[in-house]
Amino acid sequence: MRLSELGEFGLIEKIRKATPKGRGVRLGIGDDAAWVEWKENSFLITSDLLVEGVHFDLKWTSFYGLGYKTLAVNLSDLAAMGGSPAYLVISLGIPVDFNTEYIEEFYRGITALASQSGVALVGGDTSASKHFFVSASLTGHAPYRPITRTGGKVGDDLYVTGTLGDSALGLKLLRRKGGRAKGQEFSYLVSRHQFPTARLQAGTLLAQVKLAKAMIDISDGLLQDLGHLCKASRIGAAVWEEALPLSRPYRFWAGRKGSHYAFTGGEDYELLFCLRRRDRTRLEKIKKRLGVPITRIGKCVPAREGIKVLSGEGNPFSIPIQGHDHFKKRL
Amino acid sequence: MRLSELGEFGLIEKIRKATPKGRGVRLGIGDDAAWVEWKENSFLITSDLLVEGVHFDLKWTSFYGLGYKTLAVNLSDLAAMGGSPAYLVISLGIPVDFNTEYIEEFYRGITALASQSGVALVGGDTSASKHFFVSASLTGHAPYRPITRTGGKVGDDLYVTGTLGDSALGLKLLRRKGGRAKGQEFSYLVSRHQFPTARLQAGTLLAQVKLAKAMIDISDGLLQDLGHLCKASRIGAAVWEEALPLSRPYRFWAGRKGSHYAFTGGEDYELLFCLRRRDRTRLEKIKKRLGVPITRIGKCVPAREGIKVLSGEGNPFSIPIQGHDHFKKRL
Repeated sequence: MRLSELGEFGLIEKIRKATPKGRGVRLGIGDDAAWVEWKENSFLITSDLLVEGVHFDLKWTSFYGLGYKTLAVNLSDLAAMGGSPAYLVISLGIPVDFNTEYIEEFYRGITALASQSGVALVGGDTSASKHFFVSASLTGHAPYRPITRTGGKVGDDLYVTGTLGDSALGLKLLRRKGGRAKGQEFSYLVSRHQFPTARLQAGTLLAQVKLAKAMIDISDGLLQDLGHLCKASRIGAAVWEEALPLSRPYRFWAGRKGSHYAFTGGEDYELLFCLRRRDRTRLEKIKKRLGVPITRIGKCVPAREGIKVLSGEGNPFSIPIQGHDHFKKRL
Repeated sequence: MRLSELGEFGLIEKIRKATPKGRGVRLGIGDDAAWVEWKENSFLITSDLLVEGVHFDLKWTSFYGLGYKTLAVNLSDLAAMGGSPAYLVISLGIPVDFNTEYIEEFYRGITALASQSGVALVGGDTSASKHFFVSASLTGHAPYRPITRTGGKVGDDLYVTGTLGDSALGLKLLRRKGGRAKGQEFSYLVSRHQFPTARLQAGTLLAQVKLAKAMIDISDGLLQDLGHLCKASRIGAAVWEEALPLSRPYRFWAGRKGSHYAFTGGEDYELLFCLRRRDRTRLEKIKKRLGVPITRIGKCVPAREGIKVLSGEGNPFSIPIQGHDHFKKRL
């Protein structure tokens, strides 16, 4: 079978099934990060690949921004488990005719965010390559029991942090208008695309107070990542379209596309989590300490109902899940 | 400046200088692995990139062999610090028209060696890519104080494990003769190239008994890696050509090239270490427990003398250091 038929998630499932679970491994392939234990300490390890022409286009991305974002997406994976980031390794495939200044810019972007987030860049590797790519692996500590994708139950509330769709709309505008568009709404959306903020404070606090029962970060689009969470928890979900948190700049620019980017856009790096209904008051009490607004967007339903989107009138309608699959989408 | 002028080691030096050393980081960029501490436990983290057309040619490498070797080279980095391997993450860039069977073969190679060496594959990422590449990161424990590259002193003896040059000669023969050559000498050299053995037992024992004062694994060729060790330890070295450990198959096939591949070939994955002269007897006593023969090949001299090769008559001659630099060598 060709990879283009099997798809990214089919491949990961195959790899996961063929991989024996090792000693000290609490959670291997298949969540936002691996969870391993050593002498009663828990560690989280996450990895991300960013490939030129697949994940980024150097037309719309500065090397500084790419360095920044490389770390940000890994921080987001740890945030989604309630972890605390610590050690970063970065490997780069670089065309031999590259200007070294590009690479220095890239590392300036990395170290700017690393120093803010208590991360040490400790190693990596470099190689010649026909196109530019970045492979990162971030290890963190888990001060509290990590939150996986599997703890959601029928009847739970669904919450997200921040606002959705900004990043995808920002990229869309960049592609359509280049640098020509003006105004702070435009700048806001573009910065959400180029300099995403990982929700570390929220993730750690939700782990500490044990309120999030299942959690994932939204990197491939709300519906797709909700699908991953539901599959792992063996539940379905209903999401109210009107409840989606949309920023003012998003509403300004989205036009007829409405909530399209918020549902399927990707690269939000917000957190999506399940809360038991009885914990609503407790969540209310710690809300201000999360460092980011949260919004209830739906609820967990039995698995057989799948994932439904409900419009204003409460009628279900379906939105095709169009998140990222790097193999099914041709280069 | 172009990368092709700066070179791989110039680039790594630039990155190292621009990187602040973080909390808990005992050793960052610049050794075989990073060394970090957390609650009095030491961890080692190493990373390697393998890029199609740079590190391997799918004409001479099976996917199974590539998976095996990916882990082997990372094990070797940990062996060189005296570490004990534990958690592996693998990220793959894969052309979309690849047959999924290739990838399954690759993982079979990984898991075969992983289960032998107590390593758990815990995660990674995958992406479409124009050419195939592998990015691995391996985390290990350090049961004893890790051995860095910096502890060599003038007057120390230089030792290597195993035999040198087999891998490079094996690759040379594969390229020249393809699968056509016969005989066990040929098979031996090819297997040394395709299925290298990391010297984990030797590395851990040398760390335990504190006999190796500086250590590195030979991945880029003896002279180049000796150069890295000498630079880190601020010493020079003299190596006796006649002392180099060469296998019988190597002597059979090397012909007029003599010790050429042993000095500059690369991909030996043997260990090179410094021993204080007063420790010779102690080394003699534990030799049998190393799991591999060791050979004294030279001694450490003052830095100003550089790296000298001495022929049988004791006359110094120079061999140009032709190890790997992935940027200086064009694709």
